[in-house]
Amino acid sequence: MLPEQGVAADGEVRVVHDGPLAWVTLSHPGKLNAMSRAMWRHLREVFTALPTVEGLRCVVLRGEGGHFCAGGDISEYPGFRYAPDSLRAFHEGDVWGGLQAILDCDVPVVAQIEGACMGAGVEISACCDLRIAGQSAKFGAPIAKLGFPMAPREAALVAGAVGAATAREMLLEAAVFGADSMQQRGFLNRVLADAEVAHEAAATARRIAALAPQAARLNKQTLRRLAASTVVPADAYAYADSEEHREGISAFLGKRRPSFTL
Amino acid sequence: MLPEQGVAADGEVRVVHDGPLAWVTLSHPGKLNAMSRAMWRHLREVFTALPTVEGLRCVVLRGEGGHFCAGGDISEYPGFRYAPDSLRAFHEGDVWGGLQAILDCDVPVVAQIEGACMGAGVEISACCDLRIAGQSAKFGAPIAKLGFPMAPREAALVAGAVGAATAREMLLEAAVFGADSMQQRGFLNRVLADAEVAHEAAATARRIAALAPQAARLNKQTLRRLAASTVVPADAYAYADSEEHREGISAFLGKRRPSFTL
Amino acid sequence: MLPEQGVAADGEVRVVHDGPLAWVTLSHPGKLNAMSRAMWRHLREVFTALPTVEGLRCVVLRGEGGHFCAGGDISEYPGFRYAPDSLRAFHEGDVWGGLQAILDCDVPVVAQIEGACMGAGVEISACCDLRIAGQSAKFGAPIAKLGFPMAPREAALVAGAVGAATAREMLLEAAVFGADSMQQRGFLNRVLADAEVAHEAAATARRIAALAPQAARLNKQTLRRLAASTVVPADAYAYADSEEHREGISAFLGKRRPSFTL
Repeated sequence: MLPEQGVAADGEVRVVHDGPLAWVTLSHPGKLNAMSRAMWRHLREVFTALPTVEGLRCVVLRGEGGHFCAGGDISEYPGFRYAPDSLRAFHEGDVWGGLQAILDCDVPVVAQIEGACMGAGVEISACCDLRIAGQSAKFGAPIAKLGFPMAPREAALVAGAVGAATAREMLLEAAVFGADSMQQRGFLNRVLADAEVAHEAAATARRIAALAPQAARLNKQTLRRLAASTVVPADAYAYADSEEHREGISAFLGKRRPSFTL
Repeated sequence: MLPEQGVAADGEVRVVHDGPLAWVTLSHPGKLNAMSRAMWRHLREVFTALPTVEGLRCVVLRGEGGHFCAGGDISEYPGFRYAPDSLRAFHEGDVWGGLQAILDCDVPVVAQIEGACMGAGVEISACCDLRIAGQSAKFGAPIAKLGFPMAPREAALVAGAVGAATAREMLLEAAVFGADSMQQRGFLNRVLADAEVAHEAAATARRIAALAPQAARLNKQTLRRLAASTVVPADAYAYADSEEHREGISAFLGKRRPSFTL
Repeated sequence: MLPEQGVAADGEVRVVHDGPLAWVTLSHPGKLNAMSRAMWRHLREVFTALPTVEGLRCVVLRGEGGHFCAGGDISEYPGFRYAPDSLRAFHEGDVWGGLQAILDCDVPVVAQIEGACMGAGVEISACCDLRIAGQSAKFGAPIAKLGFPMAPREAALVAGAVGAATAREMLLEAAVFGADSMQQRGFLNRVLADAEVAHEAAATARRIAALAPQAARLNKQTLRRLAASTVVPADAYAYADSEEHREGISAFLGKRRPSFTL
């Protein structure tokens, strides 16, 4: 699958408008929509612009080709993850910039979740107001296999959305969960047959679009203030140049099992 | 149904004592116990007085006639909702005054929930220690149909009790939930056949009444301190005189669908 | 069952190492591993030492003889509970010292929960990262029968782990829950047939041991910071010499029903 433009080689975040609704699509063909740095920046641009669109009432956020988002684009990681400064710039700048833009969007956002919803996928969907998933969707953040922890703000976001017990299971055991389990754990609002997810997300968006938009904006502002702010320690990214970090990413890219018996 | 006294025309909150137990009943006949301003003030008086009653061990809070509480008494809303000052006085004075009095009651409070438990009903039951509901009870806060948001303290209370995901579903999609779903979401402690709810609430109150009362008081004080305080922004009620707010309430009172396509 | 050494008479906390894993066992034969003051101090020593063990990757915390822990060792209570200073020293020193040591352990801790998991058992397991229980395990904190409240830090810990609604049910109604219910309430990560719990706990520990240890440590540090700190009021232990407190403990030790109709 050849990209037709330079941008699409690194994936992209597309927007389609349809009256009071907007569809935002994470697209990285061949990589289950894994988030590249370019996509994180697109995500921020898209969600910074959306609240200014006249008459917009609801956004549906989804992934292309039957998957939401499989995580970060690990092929890019050797380029910036092994130095604290560039690692911090990635997490606090690119990633959190994209996530914060969704959180700050005063227009309601519905996550339409199909297939893989891992790592960055869990984080992105955690920023949405409603989460609607198909039966076969899978959720987790198995970065302990990659030799690195979740960044502080991202961990606070995920723990707030999935609960502390599930966050520890995801992060410390690299556990992966099905959709029914994630509904039971309070993360998903609704689980449907895979073939019905897109229809239900659209129907939900239309229901929201018929309700009072100023009330939605004020409710989102109120609920946003309830989330505690997270302090990022000065040494949060000091692990950048560690053997463990390099081993986890190298093993993944080398298609071998990592060895953490340092 | 003619009220026999002036007070009852706006509904009332009644108390019956039975040894160590007290039954508090929300009563607004013909309106599914919708809370009038008079009822919010009664509620505050009742729950301010209860903790001083010698020998009181447990309170059961319920609604009259097979319903807990269907919300606020919307017929009163045009009288005060369209100006920020009177709107603030309603939410921060009457409503929060009643809710805070329940929260501040050191004697355990059991909510016996039958039928409609909407808006103010969710808020009132969220202030109780235990929530026991009948199978056919319904829960929601569909005020987005009425063109206004939930007040900040009330939203923090509800989100803390139903969880952030459910709060967004209630407020942004105007979703309504059954009792089994609300138990699964962690709001209800117990769900029973409708005919058994009153019996179970009374049995629970008697169980609590046999336990150590000082321990209950101290536990309630400790758990109360865990709830974060909410800051109410200066402009929280600036929406009072908006078209959307007027349209939502006018449409409801005029028995027509609101049009929010401003 | 005669203890062979002086220490074991008051119970003990034992540690066995097996390569990257450690098994910590609460042991108080004949008392369902009820926590004595000596055991709380052992617990602190054990979990203070564990993170310094070279190559340790995961800890399994369990009880001896088919039970996790039935609570505190009530036979000791008349010796120190009826004066505020010694009561405070017990809760803030011995109990919280043990619990904080588990919370501060940067190595992942898996709770293997069989049989009774009551009071201190709920608190200890609440400090673990993952909780795996057998079908017949029982959970609660029925100290309202003993005439005393949960200490502030312990109540905050438990409410954070079981949720506010369940914490109130445990503390105000002395409710006891089965394992399936505690999984539904978000406290337990996994429930298995009793005979499979030990195997699953060991398998989980081995899974964790194969993952990146520095990432685990950093994730635990991040998640630990999300827990709000608890202020202990100056008068938190003023109830020590109350009739109710004495009556609850005396009745338990005298094998009679307490009378709280003061």
